[in-house]
Amino acid sequence: MNDAQPPKPHERLAAALSSEMAAVDALIRERMASEHAPRIPEVTAHLVGGGGKRVRPLITVATARMMGHEGEDHIKLAATVEFIHTATLLHDDVVDESTQRRGRPTANLLWDNPSSVLVGDYLFARSFQLMVETGSLRVLDILSGAAATIAEGEVLQLSAARNLATTEETYLRVVRGKTAALFEAAAEVGGVLAGAPEDQVRALAEFGDALGISFQMVDDWLDYGGAGDGIGKNLGDDFREGKLTLPVIRALERGDEEERSFWREAIEKGRSDDFGRARAIVERHGTLEETRSEALAWRDRAKAALDRLPPHDLRDLLADLADYVVARAE
Amino acid sequence: MNDAQPPKPHERLAAALSSEMAAVDALIRERMASEHAPRIPEVTAHLVGGGGKRVRPLITVATARMMGHEGEDHIKLAATVEFIHTATLLHDDVVDESTQRRGRPTANLLWDNPSSVLVGDYLFARSFQLMVETGSLRVLDILSGAAATIAEGEVLQLSAARNLATTEETYLRVVRGKTAALFEAAAEVGGVLAGAPEDQVRALAEFGDALGISFQMVDDWLDYGGAGDGIGKNLGDDFREGKLTLPVIRALERGDEEERSFWREAIEKGRSDDFGRARAIVERHGTLEETRSEALAWRDRAKAALDRLPPHDLRDLLADLADYVVARAE
Repeated sequence: MNDAQPPKPHERLAAALSSEMAAVDALIRERMASEHAPRIPEVTAHLVGGGGKRVRPLITVATARMMGHEGEDHIKLAATVEFIHTATLLHDDVVDESTQRRGRPTANLLWDNPSSVLVGDYLFARSFQLMVETGSLRVLDILSGAAATIAEGEVLQLSAARNLATTEETYLRVVRGKTAALFEAAAEVGGVLAGAPEDQVRALAEFGDALGISFQMVDDWLDYGGAGDGIGKNLGDDFREGKLTLPVIRALERGDEEERSFWREAIEKGRSDDFGRARAIVERHGTLEETRSEALAWRDRAKAALDRLPPHDLRDLLADLADYVVARAE
Repeated sequence: MNDAQPPKPHERLAAALSSEMAAVDALIRERMASEHAPRIPEVTAHLVGGGGKRVRPLITVATARMMGHEGEDHIKLAATVEFIHTATLLHDDVVDESTQRRGRPTANLLWDNPSSVLVGDYLFARSFQLMVETGSLRVLDILSGAAATIAEGEVLQLSAARNLATTEETYLRVVRGKTAALFEAAAEVGGVLAGAPEDQVRALAEFGDALGISFQMVDDWLDYGGAGDGIGKNLGDDFREGKLTLPVIRALERGDEEERSFWREAIEKGRSDDFGRARAIVERHGTLEETRSEALAWRDRAKAALDRLPPHDLRDLLADLADYVVARAE
């Protein structure tokens, strides 16, 4: 029976921080609204009620508390990172022409692309208003820098798509942009808010960065069928969108001319949708398995960064969260 | 002969502030770049070299200087407002499916919608980084608030499109969002940076607001054929996109059932492209002429706000700029 299962790490984190996460949720609902444009709360309510796990705001609240923050600004920053995340989801779904997210129809499908673009812009702007309210210039510097890194990573992914010359270095930069930058900022601002010593703020940032990278690598592994079962997104999406992820980049290096010709047709020209063959190639070269190992190695780095922080119940829960993020690949 | 014509007000402002505007341009070029994603400077260079008049950064530099600012932060804020403006242009052209801007093909046509969405996001993020560098929380509050008002106005315009029940109040809110909010912020932050007294900061904000409204109303007048000659955009764009602008809102109030039926077919259902008839209606009811008068009245309010500021050469140039903005309608 389902209710006999032990709670998952993000559920235990949310339980440990329940009153604060309730405050984050209330603030998100309050600030996502708009007095004059009813389209905005319609679209945002769809996303807010969309079954997200609130991992990023959990990280901000947890890191701020475990480092000793006693004020309420971490609530604002937790809402800020969720706003930035939601805005990027809205724009990503337009860019990728996605029709499903978390098993539900996307906003661009339910409304239209213009609504997704403009409501995303609204959430970006609201996120900046929220962070400005904290009055911390260092926090503003970290979060505005993260926003720039995210957008840069997305543009980089766009021009790397269907480009077989994409290197592992570019791949890692894309992963940092699209995923790790916000995890990193979410953890770092918690420490900054608490006035933690510099080396501990650094450890928090490294934790977030490594956690984000392992999270994305598991996603990229799953897209090529990792464990084989559903994850709310379709198997082979990356392949069909011509995204050069780690399993493919490494398989390309090791493939013969016949394989390279297959990748050219499929990824570069978008002329083959033989996902079964793509999957067989990344399995034969072992690059799918290597992607899984890389994800686990980044998970280990995330936990090693946590070990440089003072002992705390929340620190242990964050370590469990890192395990959980890659558990999909274990 | 063209070179015998006296310089226009924005040209005289630019000449009076030439070394500072050169610094603004240099900063824009530096910060629009991206080390890793070459698509970004490609797209932004298209826009930066796209013949914009830099009116918004001129206002920031001029107001900061005339109110006595002696530092260099106004250069950063001038670049900030131009970045926000450029980001909104990129997103607007996606939303409106535009193919031309300032007589040149749009970025979404030359590249694609994803590039325009994501490079716009990048510019938004860079604009926030720039304003954070000034370290002024009040400036950050004003500009992040303007960004939210802009996005809200754009969403409001989206849901007001093809809606014949749109009121003048909603129209004015859309105009403030899409145009006046950034003019207002551009002028206000100049005064804040200079540490001007509150009543003068208020006068600057009112100047920017009124200037932006008159600017947009002239645009809406021109779209229905105002002076009749080209302005780098196509006559009747608003009509075809189903935008409810002032000439139409007022004509709707005064029209008979036959006219209302025409507007329903044309604006609500997008089933008629008889722009000639639309133009004849707004002329017959005098609502096109009234839109021009409203634009002139807002220009007068802009100049009256300037009169509350201490005398200064730059103040006179800003007054000339207000005249110039509506000169297209005189």
